Amino acid sequence: MKLWDKGIKVNDRIEAFTVGKDREMDLYLAPFDVLGTMAHITMLQKVGLLAADELPVLLAELKRIYALTQDGSFVIEEGIEDVHSQVELMLTRALGDMGKKVHSGRSRNDQVLLDVKLFVRHKLKEVVESVGALFAVLQKQSEAHKNKLMPGYTHLQIAMPSSFGLWFGAYAESLTDDMEMLLAAWNITNQNPLGAAAGYGSSFPLDRTMTTNLLGFADLNYNVVYAQMGRGKTEKNVASALASVAYTVGKMAMDGCLYTSQNFNFLKLPDELTTGSSIMPHKKNPDVFELIRAKCNRIQALPQEIGQITANLPMGYFRDLQIIKEILLPAFDELISCIDLATFAIDNIKVMENLLDDDKYLYLFSVEEVNKLVLNGVPFRDAYKQVGGDIEQGMFNPDKQVNHTHEGSIGNLCTAQIAQKMERLSHRFDFEKVDNAILKLLS
Amino acid sequence: MKLWDKGIKVNDRIEAFTVGKDREMDLYLAPFDVLGTMAHITMLQKVGLLAADELPVLLAELKRIYALTQDGSFVIEEGIEDVHSQVELMLTRALGDMGKKVHSGRSRNDQVLLDVKLFVRHKLKEVVESVGALFAVLQKQSEAHKNKLMPGYTHLQIAMPSSFGLWFGAYAESLTDDMEMLLAAWNITNQNPLGAAAGYGSSFPLDRTMTTNLLGFADLNYNVVYAQMGRGKTEKNVASALASVAYTVGKMAMDGCLYTSQNFNFLKLPDELTTGSSIMPHKKNPDVFELIRAKCNRIQALPQEIGQITANLPMGYFRDLQIIKEILLPAFDELISCIDLATFAIDNIKVMENLLDDDKYLYLFSVEEVNKLVLNGVPFRDAYKQVGGDIEQGMFNPDKQVNHTHEGSIGNLCTAQIAQKMERLSHRFDFEKVDNAILKLLS
Amino acid sequence: MKLWDKGIKVNDRIEAFTVGKDREMDLYLAPFDVLGTMAHITMLQKVGLLAADELPVLLAELKRIYALTQDGSFVIEEGIEDVHSQVELMLTRALGDMGKKVHSGRSRNDQVLLDVKLFVRHKLKEVVESVGALFAVLQKQSEAHKNKLMPGYTHLQIAMPSSFGLWFGAYAESLTDDMEMLLAAWNITNQNPLGAAAGYGSSFPLDRTMTTNLLGFADLNYNVVYAQMGRGKTEKNVASALASVAYTVGKMAMDGCLYTSQNFNFLKLPDELTTGSSIMPHKKNPDVFELIRAKCNRIQALPQEIGQITANLPMGYFRDLQIIKEILLPAFDELISCIDLATFAIDNIKVMENLLDDDKYLYLFSVEEVNKLVLNGVPFRDAYKQVGGDIEQGMFNPDKQVNHTHEGSIGNLCTAQIAQKMERLSHRFDFEKVDNAILKLLS
Amino acid sequence: MKLWDKGIKVNDRIEAFTVGKDREMDLYLAPFDVLGTMAHITMLQKVGLLAADELPVLLAELKRIYALTQDGSFVIEEGIEDVHSQVELMLTRALGDMGKKVHSGRSRNDQVLLDVKLFVRHKLKEVVESVGALFAVLQKQSEAHKNKLMPGYTHLQIAMPSSFGLWFGAYAESLTDDMEMLLAAWNITNQNPLGAAAGYGSSFPLDRTMTTNLLGFADLNYNVVYAQMGRGKTEKNVASALASVAYTVGKMAMDGCLYTSQNFNFLKLPDELTTGSSIMPHKKNPDVFELIRAKCNRIQALPQEIGQITANLPMGYFRDLQIIKEILLPAFDELISCIDLATFAIDNIKVMENLLDDDKYLYLFSVEEVNKLVLNGVPFRDAYKQVGGDIEQGMFNPDKQVNHTHEGSIGNLCTAQIAQKMERLSHRFDFEKVDNAILKLLS
Repeated sequence: MKLWDKGIKVNDRIEAFTVGKDREMDLYLAPFDVLGTMAHITMLQKVGLLAADELPVLLAELKRIYALTQDGSFVIEEGIEDVHSQVELMLTRALGDMGKKVHSGRSRNDQVLLDVKLFVRHKLKEVVESVGALFAVLQKQSEAHKNKLMPGYTHLQIAMPSSFGLWFGAYAESLTDDMEMLLAAWNITNQNPLGAAAGYGSSFPLDRTMTTNLLGFADLNYNVVYAQMGRGKTEKNVASALASVAYTVGKMAMDGCLYTSQNFNFLKLPDELTTGSSIMPHKKNPDVFELIRAKCNRIQALPQEIGQITANLPMGYFRDLQIIKEILLPAFDELISCIDLATFAIDNIKVMENLLDDDKYLYLFSVEEVNKLVLNGVPFRDAYKQVGGDIEQGMFNPDKQVNHTHEGSIGNLCTAQIAQKMERLSHRFDFEKVDNAILKLLS
Repeated sequence: MKLWDKGIKVNDRIEAFTVGKDREMDLYLAPFDVLGTMAHITMLQKVGLLAADELPVLLAELKRIYALTQDGSFVIEEGIEDVHSQVELMLTRALGDMGKKVHSGRSRNDQVLLDVKLFVRHKLKEVVESVGALFAVLQKQSEAHKNKLMPGYTHLQIAMPSSFGLWFGAYAESLTDDMEMLLAAWNITNQNPLGAAAGYGSSFPLDRTMTTNLLGFADLNYNVVYAQMGRGKTEKNVASALASVAYTVGKMAMDGCLYTSQNFNFLKLPDELTTGSSIMPHKKNPDVFELIRAKCNRIQALPQEIGQITANLPMGYFRDLQIIKEILLPAFDELISCIDLATFAIDNIKVMENLLDDDKYLYLFSVEEVNKLVLNGVPFRDAYKQVGGDIEQGMFNPDKQVNHTHEGSIGNLCTAQIAQKMERLSHRFDFEKVDNAILKLLS
Repeated sequence: MKLWDKGIKVNDRIEAFTVGKDREMDLYLAPFDVLGTMAHITMLQKVGLLAADELPVLLAELKRIYALTQDGSFVIEEGIEDVHSQVELMLTRALGDMGKKVHSGRSRNDQVLLDVKLFVRHKLKEVVESVGALFAVLQKQSEAHKNKLMPGYTHLQIAMPSSFGLWFGAYAESLTDDMEMLLAAWNITNQNPLGAAAGYGSSFPLDRTMTTNLLGFADLNYNVVYAQMGRGKTEKNVASALASVAYTVGKMAMDGCLYTSQNFNFLKLPDELTTGSSIMPHKKNPDVFELIRAKCNRIQALPQEIGQITANLPMGYFRDLQIIKEILLPAFDELISCIDLATFAIDNIKVMENLLDDDKYLYLFSVEEVNKLVLNGVPFRDAYKQVGGDIEQGMFNPDKQVNHTHEGSIGNLCTAQIAQKMERLSHRFDFEKVDNAILKLLS
Repeated sequence: MKLWDKGIKVNDRIEAFTVGKDREMDLYLAPFDVLGTMAHITMLQKVGLLAADELPVLLAELKRIYALTQDGSFVIEEGIEDVHSQVELMLTRALGDMGKKVHSGRSRNDQVLLDVKLFVRHKLKEVVESVGALFAVLQKQSEAHKNKLMPGYTHLQIAMPSSFGLWFGAYAESLTDDMEMLLAAWNITNQNPLGAAAGYGSSFPLDRTMTTNLLGFADLNYNVVYAQMGRGKTEKNVASALASVAYTVGKMAMDGCLYTSQNFNFLKLPDELTTGSSIMPHKKNPDVFELIRAKCNRIQALPQEIGQITANLPMGYFRDLQIIKEILLPAFDELISCIDLATFAIDNIKVMENLLDDDKYLYLFSVEEVNKLVLNGVPFRDAYKQVGGDIEQGMFNPDKQVNHTHEGSIGNLCTAQIAQKMERLSHRFDFEKVDNAILKLLS
């Protein structure tokens, strides 16, 4: 069943090829398709395109379908092309011709635009929440281990003293920058495209401001050509925001892999968080970090994957955009699982102590020694040469005391200030407005 | 059930996360895992690691399992980690402890290396065959329409006369260059990694030359560290070859989209190969070309997607490589479906005639006029200025005859020479040797 | 001359290879290196690491060097490794040993971190200004041509009536979403890394809040490990924001290429904005749009290019980051030139009139006819079938009147609302605070 | 000066923007433009488009210009658009109107197509030679250190014994697979596009087979539409081949960074191959490996960078292709410098000895112990559990003898077989034919 059936039979191979994974992908969109339809018909009634007595009947049926999407029993039936056709079919089955009226004044183009935006908005909130949980664990660990020193590296060569307080805290602060990207993604997404129809608007006297309010959007994508043209571009920018989070989480996982290696041995995963080898009985591998890393890399490739599809397409809808659903829709759960597993691993990881007692880390203190000379009046460049000379002649014997006091250093982590930064950013997402609108629509 | 079970319970969340889509992905590999195991144990028996009377028993059971992979009834059971564990479990169920012996002298690392190589080799053959079919249809259409002229463009501005013979034929020849990339992919793939174990070889006296021959490989990946390190890199290079085919097919699809637009109207798809709109009753859209284009773009993004995962990993196996299976394994069928649908569409497409009668295409003939002057002795630059002047003053009135005779031009398509090029390239794949080896192994 | 010279001669080939394009790239950074040094030493004096009488002497000399960077006469001399060494050399030449003191309490790592951030911040402002100019021209053209209809396409098939008002206006609104990305980039960039030293802070009692204020930053990158780790990631996110602008501008250029083709002929570039062919005297090619398109595509590839370099690097500085300078630094001017040329072309482009008189655009009005039936009480799906039937039987004869009135449609472009959206976004950049801080520092 | 000047002044901003970096890029192409012109006019004379007495005069002048390109004195003058215009200008200056005749029967489109192919062909040979030199050094080091054991890792966890013989040898063999990609690139490149003119051929009776032979090409790009369409695609496939080499070299550099870290300390660069820090006097950093790694990553991003530009472009020339020159042309020298520096570093690197004496590497031998039990008749899975138990209870006390004998393992590196593989591949490049043709053309 197709919304555009005109009686010409589409060739079976073309049919199978063009439907592709749409029926699978559209399951992600089902609840949002129903919500969008509810807002749309509420507006249709207001502008006189639906009778006053039809609206409550249709809304009641749509709420029933919505409930199916929530308990997992909504299905797109065999032979039904997409979620839009399925919902309309269910309405028509239950309510006859009245069901057909929900499509007035819109096209599948703005319908899927809207569905994708509502879905992305919903998932961005989940991502923000997962990021918040990881942030909290990282800050907790940073404070818990703030006095435990570890080697700091540049060029993977031992460089200067660092600490686990710094290491955990660094990834916490990294997440605050990712929140800036998520916020941009949220703001771009949280604008109403409904009413764009096929990208050129409608001759019906639609009230797009009304649907904007009903669905809790912060603003409209006004221009209907842009509303349509935003498809692909919105997804690409959202993917860039996911990529930013993935950058942080993936890099942390890389550190996790390195630092649990016997050659570093800074961190240790509990046995039950490791996996073994089919031939080496001694192995306890940090597969969890490796898979987080790889999945986060895959997420980092998303913008380019989308970009290859959208490149050089002129304005106007193309079926190409369907493939972007396959790329982006499942990526949210992938990223969330990476964040959540990272949270779980970081929360349970064991930090090794007294690492700097090992003689191979002696030279970490060379800058401290240079700085002491400077504080005693030796010009920096001369102090540098003197300590360098001591090292070359094997006469370097530092005092291993670390006295870093400035903002963000070993002795002054600024955990509270970083928490405030995160707090300020979190408040810029208007989740409450959105949640209230959806709740009201469903009530 | 895991091959590396040591009695420590892995945490459930870690378990679910690390297994990921492996059970789904490994279904692609199942027949090849069985074939690899057959070759491996045949060798084990020869070098004395398996009793002479055990080999036929194990081989018979493996052939039975192989048959299951061919009729679609092979499954990876709930709780079984991967295809390797599943096959070993089935052997042990049927044959007891004897089943456990098949893993001697190898690791899951070289087992999956081998499986992926055998799978890729198998699928590359399918790609080559699909490319061959598309090539044949393109050459047929090129000859059939060799006398039908069409406008040729540069900068999307009308430029010089072209023909459908040239247009179809161009994509045929493009496929010959893609075959060079496929051949490189084939040669890189068609080398035996078995015996690398976890990437450092084995203290067993394995005979790797024997398994090379049994599996029909052209050569060995000798160095065991490289054999392992080739994972990821092989996939990336194979993906580059698929991307080359996708480049050709995707570009042809772009032309298909453009040329079926009412503003060009050079080509026409039969109605049953088009799709409609949910609001515009007049629409007959070339979705098939759009989806080919988008899917081919996605395939073109594969090498980078893999590259983001493999970048900066030091040598040695990492679990990250598992994610590459999800990226590459399903891509073959995606590409093959694009090629096959392109073949189908090209075979059925209607070519519009007498296009150049339209006055807007008049200036296509400006170079012909310049060249006539040149052949009459006017220096090229002067002829160019004279014709340019005529055009500016609206006095351009060309003879619309096209007389191109050199190799590869409208009047001399060189279809046979291009077919020979394809033929020469096809012969450089040693499919027969591979097929014979597999047939012998299964006999 | 190197800041880290210890008397061991570096091999010449290594020297040439490692310096690479740094001397060229560092010219972008020179003024910012000087500004950063001015802020740093002002702080050093306050915390007692510089004598009170030395500060004004050093500041005066630095202002002199700053002036050289502004009039183009600053050079990095032969044999000098980078901008940091060059500035220190100039100070030492002029002031003797006093010049050496400016490096106390920092490393080249946080120095270049700071330089890159100040440079990016400066260039982001230029991008925002260019975007603003293009936005203004697009809105002007949208209003000027709001009553001129053009065909609207989906699938490149004629679909519904559109207008030049919509087309120009769409790209204007697209820029507002790009501003969200630019704002995220700005906020991520506009945080002070100075004091991170080599990524592990300093034992000197630095006052990082003071340099934050002196340089007009909105906040600190507190955690010193993160401050360092932000290098690469900041650039990648900034590149994603540039890519968003490039997406809009590049797509508009694609439309420009298509619509100036004789087969569309919707837009016309003045002759002096076109280029010719060496063999076809009639050609007037829209190279300007093609090069904007290609350059914008290249900019869209930046995040991935950076991502390939940063992928899987553990925390800590690596020399790899130097190569990111070559990728990102010149990209700002590339993008700005694309935006500016697009502004110029759009401002001068000629819009063709009465396009819909052409019979091939008749079916654009099919939805209007369907909607009329719906407004007269026919259910949508039935109206759709009726009009579809008329078209198939050649009986479609529409009234070509377009009556779109809802927000963002042909008759109601919402230009003012879109301008307000842009205005709100522009105000969220704290350019004034930054400019004032820099002015004060230089005064 | 432009080849297509018709007297209309191009706007200055458009002029500057469209010329872009072409004058810089075209210097790469200059010698090849001259060679192509020599072949073209030799053919023109044969088919009667150039007088017999003009040919030697023009050829002599072209040889003079070629000599300028070889000694570095060829310049593209201020105001001259590209190399093609410059060469024609020089001919006309020296020979008057006769110089104008060299452009008959070709367009700048096939001229630059040819130039790029000749340049790429030339540079691929240089890449192959550099690869050969690195291969030789790696094989030499592999043999020199074949008895020095090192830890082998999986998951960066210690796994099984490896050796420096294996490690060096692995990268040597990796280069053989890269040669397959280079060969595909070579074969795709080494076909003659000349005669395609603007992509639609010529009405002149060109003899394309003759120019094919004169320039030493292996074959023709027959179809003129494909010959043109191959631009962009050829570059992308060539970039994929460069990316393959960069994959190998970059990964080796990553290992170099890791193994020279104090936490591994497997390899040591001589002091004069390291660089220092501006604040840490003890640092000796492996910047050379880091820059090789980053540059190789950038090269790995090339195909995607090109792919973003070519995506979704329909057939026919577009100015977009100009930007690909900026991406690809300088990349060859970048890659060659990476290979050459890697060769230099590998040739001079110091290998640390007796690594496995360190107790942290004890468990490397667990598989050896398992295998001993298996050889004594214990089923593999049982032996695995027994050794695993010993390890858990701290009772693991292995004999540290390694007895690997099979093909490609520690004790049997197969250096000669890998050398033969490389030899076979090298012979498939027809460098000699190409060199002889060019020599003859210039004689």
